[in-house]
Amino acid sequence: MATQTFQVTGMSCEHCVDAVTAEVSQLAGVTAVDVDLAAGSVTVTSAQPLSADAMAAAIDEAGYQLTP
Amino acid sequence: MATQTFQVTGMSCEHCVDAVTAEVSQLAGVTAVDVDLAAGSVTVTSAQPLSADAMAAAIDEAGYQLTP
Repeated sequence: MATQTFQVTGMSCEHCVDAVTAEVSQLAGVTAVDVDLAAGSVTVTSAQPLSADAMAAAIDEAGYQLTP
Repeated sequence: MATQTFQVTGMSCEHCVDAVTAEVSQLAGVTAVDVDLAAGSVTVTSAQPLSADAMAAAIDEAGYQLTP
């Protein structure tokens, strides 16, 4: 199991939290997604570590951006 | 026909715009809703003028507040 925390730019409200949570939850092996709106961070628990590319794609799909 | 502009507190992103637009559009007689996110304003076109109470209830239902 892996737990990773990513910084995400542009999340401003609970709707944003919901959108990011929904997209990241769909990635293979993800079992938990925790978004800290104030910190702009997304912590993901998954069976295997996520690639940065997969995470970036999910965040982009939700309408936000990974902080490089 | 009436066109009224209200100030709304708490809208921060396009999801907020969508939520407010959906709720206000359901009010009787409303034919157009235009949300200006940067200005925090919602302009409503309706067959008859909306009461402040009806508008406040719709905005509250969407999760935001009319600026008094």
